[in-house]
Amino acid sequence: MGGSSFGTLFRISTFGESHGAAVGVVVDGCPSGLPLAEPDIQHDLDRRRVGQSRMTSARNEPDAVRILSGVFEGRTTGTPIAMVVENTNARSQDYDAIKDLYRPGHADYTWDAKFGFRDYRGGGRSSARETVGRVAAGAVARKLLGTIGVRVFAYTVQLAHLRAERIDEAEIERNPMRCPDPEVAPQMVALVEQARRELDSLGGIVEVRARSVPPGLGEPVFDKLDADIGKAMLSIPAVKGVEIGAGFDVAQQRGSRNNDPFTRREDGHIGTTSNHAGGILGGISSGEEIVVRVAAKPPASIAQEQQTVNQSGDPALITVKGRHDPTVLPRLVPVAEAMLLLVLADHWLRQRAARL
Amino acid sequence: MGGSSFGTLFRISTFGESHGAAVGVVVDGCPSGLPLAEPDIQHDLDRRRVGQSRMTSARNEPDAVRILSGVFEGRTTGTPIAMVVENTNARSQDYDAIKDLYRPGHADYTWDAKFGFRDYRGGGRSSARETVGRVAAGAVARKLLGTIGVRVFAYTVQLAHLRAERIDEAEIERNPMRCPDPEVAPQMVALVEQARRELDSLGGIVEVRARSVPPGLGEPVFDKLDADIGKAMLSIPAVKGVEIGAGFDVAQQRGSRNNDPFTRREDGHIGTTSNHAGGILGGISSGEEIVVRVAAKPPASIAQEQQTVNQSGDPALITVKGRHDPTVLPRLVPVAEAMLLLVLADHWLRQRAARL
Amino acid sequence: MGGSSFGTLFRISTFGESHGAAVGVVVDGCPSGLPLAEPDIQHDLDRRRVGQSRMTSARNEPDAVRILSGVFEGRTTGTPIAMVVENTNARSQDYDAIKDLYRPGHADYTWDAKFGFRDYRGGGRSSARETVGRVAAGAVARKLLGTIGVRVFAYTVQLAHLRAERIDEAEIERNPMRCPDPEVAPQMVALVEQARRELDSLGGIVEVRARSVPPGLGEPVFDKLDADIGKAMLSIPAVKGVEIGAGFDVAQQRGSRNNDPFTRREDGHIGTTSNHAGGILGGISSGEEIVVRVAAKPPASIAQEQQTVNQSGDPALITVKGRHDPTVLPRLVPVAEAMLLLVLADHWLRQRAARL
Amino acid sequence: MGGSSFGTLFRISTFGESHGAAVGVVVDGCPSGLPLAEPDIQHDLDRRRVGQSRMTSARNEPDAVRILSGVFEGRTTGTPIAMVVENTNARSQDYDAIKDLYRPGHADYTWDAKFGFRDYRGGGRSSARETVGRVAAGAVARKLLGTIGVRVFAYTVQLAHLRAERIDEAEIERNPMRCPDPEVAPQMVALVEQARRELDSLGGIVEVRARSVPPGLGEPVFDKLDADIGKAMLSIPAVKGVEIGAGFDVAQQRGSRNNDPFTRREDGHIGTTSNHAGGILGGISSGEEIVVRVAAKPPASIAQEQQTVNQSGDPALITVKGRHDPTVLPRLVPVAEAMLLLVLADHWLRQRAARL
Repeated sequence: MGGSSFGTLFRISTFGESHGAAVGVVVDGCPSGLPLAEPDIQHDLDRRRVGQSRMTSARNEPDAVRILSGVFEGRTTGTPIAMVVENTNARSQDYDAIKDLYRPGHADYTWDAKFGFRDYRGGGRSSARETVGRVAAGAVARKLLGTIGVRVFAYTVQLAHLRAERIDEAEIERNPMRCPDPEVAPQMVALVEQARRELDSLGGIVEVRARSVPPGLGEPVFDKLDADIGKAMLSIPAVKGVEIGAGFDVAQQRGSRNNDPFTRREDGHIGTTSNHAGGILGGISSGEEIVVRVAAKPPASIAQEQQTVNQSGDPALITVKGRHDPTVLPRLVPVAEAMLLLVLADHWLRQRAARL
Repeated sequence: MGGSSFGTLFRISTFGESHGAAVGVVVDGCPSGLPLAEPDIQHDLDRRRVGQSRMTSARNEPDAVRILSGVFEGRTTGTPIAMVVENTNARSQDYDAIKDLYRPGHADYTWDAKFGFRDYRGGGRSSARETVGRVAAGAVARKLLGTIGVRVFAYTVQLAHLRAERIDEAEIERNPMRCPDPEVAPQMVALVEQARRELDSLGGIVEVRARSVPPGLGEPVFDKLDADIGKAMLSIPAVKGVEIGAGFDVAQQRGSRNNDPFTRREDGHIGTTSNHAGGILGGISSGEEIVVRVAAKPPASIAQEQQTVNQSGDPALITVKGRHDPTVLPRLVPVAEAMLLLVLADHWLRQRAARL
Repeated sequence: MGGSSFGTLFRISTFGESHGAAVGVVVDGCPSGLPLAEPDIQHDLDRRRVGQSRMTSARNEPDAVRILSGVFEGRTTGTPIAMVVENTNARSQDYDAIKDLYRPGHADYTWDAKFGFRDYRGGGRSSARETVGRVAAGAVARKLLGTIGVRVFAYTVQLAHLRAERIDEAEIERNPMRCPDPEVAPQMVALVEQARRELDSLGGIVEVRARSVPPGLGEPVFDKLDADIGKAMLSIPAVKGVEIGAGFDVAQQRGSRNNDPFTRREDGHIGTTSNHAGGILGGISSGEEIVVRVAAKPPASIAQEQQTVNQSGDPALITVKGRHDPTVLPRLVPVAEAMLLLVLADHWLRQRAARL
Repeated sequence: MGGSSFGTLFRISTFGESHGAAVGVVVDGCPSGLPLAEPDIQHDLDRRRVGQSRMTSARNEPDAVRILSGVFEGRTTGTPIAMVVENTNARSQDYDAIKDLYRPGHADYTWDAKFGFRDYRGGGRSSARETVGRVAAGAVARKLLGTIGVRVFAYTVQLAHLRAERIDEAEIERNPMRCPDPEVAPQMVALVEQARRELDSLGGIVEVRARSVPPGLGEPVFDKLDADIGKAMLSIPAVKGVEIGAGFDVAQQRGSRNNDPFTRREDGHIGTTSNHAGGILGGISSGEEIVVRVAAKPPASIAQEQQTVNQSGDPALITVKGRHDPTVLPRLVPVAEAMLLLVLADHWLRQRAARL
């Protein structure tokens, strides 16, 4: 239980370091018979990839995925789907200067505290490059859930103090911030440029939504759908908070207003007239849209000089070089989608065993 | 994998419905040799118990725990510790009137959607009474972590718009809201009374802290310490959001300010001069205080008439009777402590396998 | 992961020591809607119980099961089913004399080596009394599998050198050895009486069969149906070997004879004209009868004086008192049935996730 | 939980089909700091490889392993170790003729019954080529356990009626049958040649031993050391039986003879004067040598014409072409070693959490 696996029935195991030979994932438990090919995976990997714009870091790798197993004649066979992406563009020498120093906000110190030493090149396994495996596996989950019409998408809803007021889905992939508000998007882009000039970085919030999720997904009492979503999101590098539906705003609401009244929807199914619950009641999906927000901290790698210590605890000054994002938000979007997809795929399969 | 188990090495399995024969838990994986007796458990169960004050519902059960196994001559043996609390004071007839109606904000509908039917008495297993098992198991974890000096405590940091400005630990258990600010506590009490008179309920935020946690706990990349804490907290009934350290505030911070500079502490160990990270870096404990906040929604059970549907989807009006809390916050405090304790105990044991 | 849980989707967690307060089990993952009541459980518990005849030990406990949760209005709800049997007739003083000595063939020494100390009363958790929880959970699995017509039964096929030549199912429960051969059964009974007089004990073999198991159960490559059966059986106290179908005899067979030719059965389904495979091919059920044999050692507790050491390693002589079976076989029958039922129930649920 | 993972703390996930792009494994949970390089893995892979002699099939692949992650500067980092072996020499066209027929003794039919279709090329994932991942992972476990002096080795103890009477360890790797008896080895070789000429195949028994295993490994009650060994062995293709120590012979023994008397060994530790238990008492290692035997069926692929059915159930005759072993025994030796190593490594890590 080294911690690199996720899920119960739709279960993934990721591997790989930022500057090692490759990163990848094994998906075990995908049902047989699902049409699947490399382009299905590549699309989401390309969305995750760096170098797409000035918003993200300059490291430019094609991130071409190769499926090693689990697919035969264009369909999944029910056996493990191994997917590998080679690391082709790693400049490890950037890290030699700081291998004995602990970068503030990074996992260098805690990694040493845990394992006694670490692969310091690009953060090793604590690098966001680790999310390649998540996104590849999430693409399989997306294909699987697509068979029942589930659709998952995400966007940057907040950058620093800038907040999207409109959610125009068509706008999301049109701007480098993946902001759904066409008026706010250019402001976000400008703010990122400013932060870059100031050698600083910016935090923000990504919102993830899932539509057409059937009611009944989620297992009482610990494997609640929202509990597993919470774990999924907080396992993403840089995420420091997660909320469902009304989230932290419920603290200031009264029950009479927060409760979502039940009604019969036009399609004849039971629904609610509001959705403060974010599509989950008692840990089980209600059929309403699932709404999740995750808060991402400003990237720890900034080009400013910072105070720190070396491995012996002696004070030192550090300047982090390398290719770094001034904000993680645009790249967090496909990763957050992937994690929600993985949770939903897993619980959709688990639900098959719920009733006689 | 019905979902009622939690943890990897320190693993608990809870059982029981609100109005069934009993609730309880089996703790498997507690190391041998830990001094343990029923009073160790009873103390936290009493803190969780209802009927302690006017803040909480009127259902009054002694909740006396009985240890059935796993302890011999006052010490744990390494075998499963089964603990049972009988249900002695359940008034199931309160629920007959609404067994065919879906209470807004409750799990009635989603439970039916999942399992086809439900134990409607008091919410059955979706009742907060389920948390008895968590608190009992958490008390074992508290005893275990006490052997290395770890201390976990929680308090109500916010009720509706009222926010504790001071954290006076000694104050927490002195007032019925478990508010650490002696000036704000009576205001919270008054607000709860007002909400009760208005047949309404209130949300809020509980803050949980863990001190003297050794650095190195948490497993990259999915079983990060904060990921498992997130799951633990979001599995608690009524919780809709969780954040670590600066949490959602990181969205508006810059890296230059959010990064916690490393320093050599007075005890010679490496620490940080601030703690925006909340004691966790890269998913691994840093040795700084762990700080978690959870947002709890206003209880769904309110005495006002509400709009809903019956099991056939026909519109109906519902008035929820029974004994209900106008706020869950004071009782959430020991439950949130328990969940953090369970995560820490589990990762403390897992950490033993990290190095050669 | 203390080791007291078994199964993936149909998952049980047992607890309890021989001379503690109670033994029991929590079954998590049983689908909702299954009719279940205490008599369903009690029947198999009574078959497991001691004191049924002179074949088994004289400890006489009613072993009355109490269902604490998971059943509402006569049906399972999908939540954990907790079942408890109180220990009412434990004579712990029998063990005071030998608490510092290691009984040969028992787990006393290895338990101390592992945990540092042990509950020495009646073997504590290493006692066969632990199997009460297995049998109770197995009875739930039996009820569940009964809904699709699966039938599991077992019998004593060999005691020492005596081997049943005929399998007359109706005979099994008619004689105290649960031997299916009416001619061999009385010989077995006489041999047990002789061993008892000689203060000795006897080994043997139990055969377990499952009929009407649907094809397709079992997961490649580690969770093969036979692999999980093997684990299930070898986890039973006293079992030292397990084989499937032709078992160890395959060592002396040739492929041309061992391969089971495929054919179309009278019911139109595909079957085989022989069943050396024991109903499992490539780890997946074939639809043919599943046949498993388990070898049980002669009980370690014998009234003869034996050579051993004390906890310090000093030589000592030991005479094991207490109430002990001269053979475990009759009681192994319901336990082996239970373990096969648990594996089949689990894999039946797992199979639901195999295909799109 | 697709079934392709094994272990709890030292956990492996294998992937790959016989005629797919590659086979491999991800090892998660190996402690940091272990010296490891590709030659450590390659040695055991070479022992498993086909084409070593006339005893085994003619498919000749170098099976060169590539470590993709988890090792930095020659030591494990505590992160997942991904290892891949490309498939370079697959002649899939051999299988076109029989893709609609069910080969007797193979998993073709059960695989279709489970998944609806299958990768028929070389048995797909049901091929013994799947064991490459096991052996690679086992080599890591061997290195890990070597740090505490544990040594695991295996050999062919029986082929058809031929049984090794002497165990000369030095002899094992000197003959193609891996038979430890220099007199019996050539007889075995001759028998294999004869079977090959007769277009038939042979079963047999492999014995696996582990020395210097510390006492205390194994978790009561389901994760007993022997239970996990049983599962490990029965998950290997072609294995139909497993026994520990005296194994099935215990059926004919009396307790007075089968019990192993305790004694103080020359090194001062507690041991036993005999070892019928095979080094495991009550599911926990005793410190004595662990002895396991596994029965392997004669390979199902024989060149004789056999009776079968096609996918529609119509009768057919089949002649299995391709490159096949007349016996699996020599190649089973390193696979059985690997599985025992994996179980021991896992339980060695689990044992670290047993005591306060």
